[in-house]
Amino acid sequence: MRLHDLKRLFVGTPLPTAQSRHERLDKATALATFASDALSSVAYATEEILLVLIVAGTAALSYSMPIAVAIAVLIAIVISSYRQTILAYPQGGGAYIVSKDNLGVLPGLVAAAALLIDYVLTVAVSVAAGVAAVTSAVPSLFPLRVWLCVAAVAAVAVANLRGIRESGKLFAAPTYLFIASLGAVVAWGVFGAVFNLLPKAPYQAHPPGLEGVGLFLILRAFASGCAALTGVEAVSDGVPAFKPPEGHNARVVLTWLGIILITLFLGVTYLAYDLGIVPREHETVVSQIARHVFGTGLAYYEIQLVTMLILLLAANTSFADFPRLAFFLARDRFIPRQFATQGDRLVFSNGIVILGGLAIVLLIIFGGQTHALIPLYAVGVFISFTLSQASMVRRWLRLRAEGWWWRVWLNGLGALVTGVVMLTIATTKFSHGAWIVVLLIPTLVVAFLTVHRHYDTVAAQLSLEDQSPTPPPLENTVLVLVGDLHRGVVRALQYAQTLSPNAKAVYVETDPERTRRLEERWGKWGMGVPLIVLNSPYRSLLGPLMEYIDQLRRQRGEHHVVTIVLPEFLPARWWQQLLHNQTALLIKGQLLFRKNVVVTDVPYHLKR
Amino acid sequence: MRLHDLKRLFVGTPLPTAQSRHERLDKATALATFASDALSSVAYATEEILLVLIVAGTAALSYSMPIAVAIAVLIAIVISSYRQTILAYPQGGGAYIVSKDNLGVLPGLVAAAALLIDYVLTVAVSVAAGVAAVTSAVPSLFPLRVWLCVAAVAAVAVANLRGIRESGKLFAAPTYLFIASLGAVVAWGVFGAVFNLLPKAPYQAHPPGLEGVGLFLILRAFASGCAALTGVEAVSDGVPAFKPPEGHNARVVLTWLGIILITLFLGVTYLAYDLGIVPREHETVVSQIARHVFGTGLAYYEIQLVTMLILLLAANTSFADFPRLAFFLARDRFIPRQFATQGDRLVFSNGIVILGGLAIVLLIIFGGQTHALIPLYAVGVFISFTLSQASMVRRWLRLRAEGWWWRVWLNGLGALVTGVVMLTIATTKFSHGAWIVVLLIPTLVVAFLTVHRHYDTVAAQLSLEDQSPTPPPLENTVLVLVGDLHRGVVRALQYAQTLSPNAKAVYVETDPERTRRLEERWGKWGMGVPLIVLNSPYRSLLGPLMEYIDQLRRQRGEHHVVTIVLPEFLPARWWQQLLHNQTALLIKGQLLFRKNVVVTDVPYHLKR
Repeated sequence: MRLHDLKRLFVGTPLPTAQSRHERLDKATALATFASDALSSVAYATEEILLVLIVAGTAALSYSMPIAVAIAVLIAIVISSYRQTILAYPQGGGAYIVSKDNLGVLPGLVAAAALLIDYVLTVAVSVAAGVAAVTSAVPSLFPLRVWLCVAAVAAVAVANLRGIRESGKLFAAPTYLFIASLGAVVAWGVFGAVFNLLPKAPYQAHPPGLEGVGLFLILRAFASGCAALTGVEAVSDGVPAFKPPEGHNARVVLTWLGIILITLFLGVTYLAYDLGIVPREHETVVSQIARHVFGTGLAYYEIQLVTMLILLLAANTSFADFPRLAFFLARDRFIPRQFATQGDRLVFSNGIVILGGLAIVLLIIFGGQTHALIPLYAVGVFISFTLSQASMVRRWLRLRAEGWWWRVWLNGLGALVTGVVMLTIATTKFSHGAWIVVLLIPTLVVAFLTVHRHYDTVAAQLSLEDQSPTPPPLENTVLVLVGDLHRGVVRALQYAQTLSPNAKAVYVETDPERTRRLEERWGKWGMGVPLIVLNSPYRSLLGPLMEYIDQLRRQRGEHHVVTIVLPEFLPARWWQQLLHNQTALLIKGQLLFRKNVVVTDVPYHLKR
Repeated sequence: MRLHDLKRLFVGTPLPTAQSRHERLDKATALATFASDALSSVAYATEEILLVLIVAGTAALSYSMPIAVAIAVLIAIVISSYRQTILAYPQGGGAYIVSKDNLGVLPGLVAAAALLIDYVLTVAVSVAAGVAAVTSAVPSLFPLRVWLCVAAVAAVAVANLRGIRESGKLFAAPTYLFIASLGAVVAWGVFGAVFNLLPKAPYQAHPPGLEGVGLFLILRAFASGCAALTGVEAVSDGVPAFKPPEGHNARVVLTWLGIILITLFLGVTYLAYDLGIVPREHETVVSQIARHVFGTGLAYYEIQLVTMLILLLAANTSFADFPRLAFFLARDRFIPRQFATQGDRLVFSNGIVILGGLAIVLLIIFGGQTHALIPLYAVGVFISFTLSQASMVRRWLRLRAEGWWWRVWLNGLGALVTGVVMLTIATTKFSHGAWIVVLLIPTLVVAFLTVHRHYDTVAAQLSLEDQSPTPPPLENTVLVLVGDLHRGVVRALQYAQTLSPNAKAVYVETDPERTRRLEERWGKWGMGVPLIVLNSPYRSLLGPLMEYIDQLRRQRGEHHVVTIVLPEFLPARWWQQLLHNQTALLIKGQLLFRKNVVVTDVPYHLKR
């Protein structure tokens, strides 16, 4: 099986351009499609808060509830802000486009860099958390977790290379099952807590004073919990996918998303507190809660399964978002243009492959641990939140449309709050890994600008605008480079004669005896092409040839091209290539950078 | 600094062909030049015998003397045999040439395979033993021994890439110093033994009976000691380097070599017995003897130094022999022809690089330990001895020259004895590593034959003998593949017009809007070249193009070539290449295997 067949097996046959289309989603399926990323973070956000607090002892875990409430308020503010963005950008308002429109290119590029990094991290974090859900239920898989993560990323990437449609059916089941299952856990758990039906052990009633825990630790726990907000921007990015009236429907869905997210997140955090859950290495907090509430039965396994599925869907979301953003950046010539090319399955294959590859590298480096990846996460999201909200402020101030003043106020609050949170995250998690992102964003921005400048200079150098439509004609000197005389050489001589009636052959002499023999045979089979012999005292083929060509170029001037015809025979099998001198390759490499020189291989195909 | 400059720094500037010459050696310098390989084995041969015997306890070590005497007899027989070869092959009688001449191609190839393997092992074993001499004197270097070995091989290889002459001066000093130093140790040690001047502790006077040691172990010890014979064939290989009368001088030198070798080897083995030396991991036997005889003073360090030097010279010998044999094999088309090309320093660079690389790999795999490498060694040498002597028997029987009957008898004895020893070595050391060589030799022979057949079929397919000197002329259709219209494309159109007045441009349409814009601009800057638009429903560039080309080829028949001109702009810096589609490369790869299609890049060089 050849490489090409292998690709077809995994990726499928090409699709015609005409098949490109977009499904419109009703509200219920839209919620399922755009909510998976945001809701899936409930699976790990509470745990990340607890993992920070536990450093100050189990008693400090009681701080989780006030922190969760603060995060819930933050969610409400961000959701309200994004409801405005939907109104203003019915064509879809990603942070890159919105920032570039309202604040300028540089803020747009910062948002783009932040988002690209975060898409990679979304894949890594979601897959790591999804695998943790599985290994919580089946502990014997725990030692294999890194390879499970790699396999999951590869599977999602391949599915996307085939081209998954934004298919409501595919997304609806796991998302609604997750909402229902986790909702049942929260409802039954809270009901049990109120009526004292469950075995419970709330954290120590009197948590240590702030001086015992430290404000910095509380802020760091808050920063870790802010991972719960990742993904809420998805609805406003995807407005065009809604059924009309798009804007209205998107706002309704976003509001619902906010309510469900806040309910589940607060519920899980409360139950962790009420049941006295302490984070463990081998089992997730959600898994512990589910075991407490429902016991280790069918319901428990169902919850772990749908948790894993929604986390894979969250990862899958990035596989749509990353290539789309890459497409915009490539279209604007900030990254290599290859990212703007659709593959034969109508997907942006390059973006998918790069995203999958980077996520796999991250997962291997960080050992497939959600907790290790979290400090890198969320910085980028909040940078894009802040820039996006600030852009809206600028926009309202510029347009002064109806109700602009309270819209400025709302988006301004959003920008301020998310900006402060962004700084909090960057500061408190700096030494734990956030520094990587803080360094990476400006690096990426510089790379974007460098690429952009390159494309600009290329375009200027290739522009025809100031060129004459009738340049002076070129002259062409055709030289066949020969080392011997055989059927392949005869073929090349014949070919050279079609290019120019004055074609000549050039031979570099290393051994006068061989020259004599060649000249003898040339008389019979040389096709009347004159043979020029160059002397080579150092046995170098290239030296005398280059000298001769350079001399020709100097003599003939600017409007003159030298064509070097290389007779080459191609063995029937690849390994046979190793048995022949790679002279042609060497010559091509040397001549590539000579101006006004064209190299032409004339292949002669061997049959055996 | 570019790669090229780095090469110049290490390897030096090119040398002209005219500088190729050969020094003629007088007897004293010839002994130094050709003896290093054979004599250097004295540094480890005794130790290898002891290392096998020690398995049966220290008492068994007394068997070393009878074994050494047997090996001394063997040396005498082999030397006498080779004195005949010198007479018959004054132009140099390597085992490959002698066997091919007298026994046929297959035995010649077996000898060649055996020798190639042995040259690699000579480098590995000699360097490992040389480094052991150093680490015996400076034990703190012991943990670094593998890297010292690698560095030593690299240094010898680089020196050979520069082109060391067979310079008598370079070789004379270490060889004669080694003979003198080790001779002094043996003389003073034996003198001391006779007059009871040295502290001594000979192995137990009554060694255990053969039943206690086992015949197999004795034979294996003998087989290991046979490493002492490696290198004695060097003189007969190098007869043409002697001053006239070459044959006579070479025979005198070979006799002297035999006498010195037997004396030193027996002397070292006797002293090891007399002083009760037991082999140790961190110190060689020769080092222990030298310490016993002279104490750890200046004389001791001098002995270790010259031991290392002569072992490096032995390794160096292979760097002349391996590329020379590879040259013969390449000339006879049994290995890739690249081995027949002299580099710009007049040396066979490919052979040197391969030999150095393989020796380094062996040294790393076997941890730089002489003892681990020995089981692979000597099998190959004795195969070549046997074939070489058998060839001489065949030759005397054929020529029936004066005294043929006793010459047959002498070479026959040599062939018989070395054949038996070869089987002994292969059997007793089979499971310790000799199996690798036993498998490798037939594998190499099959590879030689495969390569030979390939070159034969290529030659037959390229032969002009049955070809008409006036083949029907070719027709050529020139197509410029365009994706856009810019200065690079205009250049390519101009170039195509020099090739054919009927050149056409081909454009693959993926977006009708872009086609419309291109066609508009084509009117102004298209140079009057007709533009053919191919439709591509699957957005593939290659599919429609290949179809079009195949259709053209079918229409026009056998004597027709399609030339695809590819406009390509070359960025000023290499990394910028990554920012552009590698379409040209893809197209070239696809078209390479289409018959009657020629691809021509027309580069347009960007300045920034």
